[in-house]
Amino acid sequence: MVRHVTLPRSETWCLPGARVEDVQTRVPEVVEQHPTASAIAVHVGSNDIRLQQSEKLKSDFTSLIQTILATGKKCIVSGPIPSACFSDMQFSRIRQLHAWLVGYCSRERVPFVDNFGSFWRRRSLFARDGRHLNRAGASLLASNLELALEAHHTPR
Amino acid sequence: MVRHVTLPRSETWCLPGARVEDVQTRVPEVVEQHPTASAIAVHVGSNDIRLQQSEKLKSDFTSLIQTILATGKKCIVSGPIPSACFSDMQFSRIRQLHAWLVGYCSRERVPFVDNFGSFWRRRSLFARDGRHLNRAGASLLASNLELALEAHHTPR
Repeated sequence: MVRHVTLPRSETWCLPGARVEDVQTRVPEVVEQHPTASAIAVHVGSNDIRLQQSEKLKSDFTSLIQTILATGKKCIVSGPIPSACFSDMQFSRIRQLHAWLVGYCSRERVPFVDNFGSFWRRRSLFARDGRHLNRAGASLLASNLELALEAHHTPR
Repeated sequence: MVRHVTLPRSETWCLPGARVEDVQTRVPEVVEQHPTASAIAVHVGSNDIRLQQSEKLKSDFTSLIQTILATGKKCIVSGPIPSACFSDMQFSRIRQLHAWLVGYCSRERVPFVDNFGSFWRRRSLFARDGRHLNRAGASLLASNLELALEAHHTPR
């Protein structure tokens, strides 16, 4: 879960412990409460990594992205963050998820926020547990998201 | 200029002081010398920022990317790095260039390597001059490029 991420002209929903399919079930509610919002950005996936079901995870992400696109709103995917406490296996899985998401989002023309290099080997951006972001980490994530939102609104 | 960036199964060309149009003029030579290479990744732009001609820079990037695509090879754009010594104006210009490149590459389906968050406010990744990357910075840039190359070869 990511806390303290605030962006201008946006509302942030925080769903502790949520997995990709949990976020998908909340999409209709978000759309209903924010009918005029132009885009939905999702940041999720770390809680799924532990289940070690990479094909299911890809399928869940595909469903989530297509569900958002079907609402007529723009979908933005905020890429996974390599936590400071990940084991080699978890790191390898999150790297694979990242690589697959980059390719999938590119093919679907869904803006992807690349967080990998920003958080890689930067213990100082995580809370004591090594899993959650601290204030500095949340601020960097917000900055990455803001830059992506801006970039995808840049005139030609 | 970026030194010490090495990637597996790749050759790196280093062109000190090169601007976008200088890189473009070298494309035929690169293609001639590497007829079997599948992709050309370019990392350039910082030397153009100083000229403060943002429309010309966009036009130069468009020409460079289209020149590479016309060779039949894949084009990969490695995004600009916010140097530690940039003035507010230079920072603002590089941010604008980044945003424009993200949008342009997305529309053209050209893989874009996002280096912005990785290098933002990280003085420790730069050499003493604050402009060039040190070994740690070059290693991170190589890692970002490698991840992007891998991601765009990931099966569906």
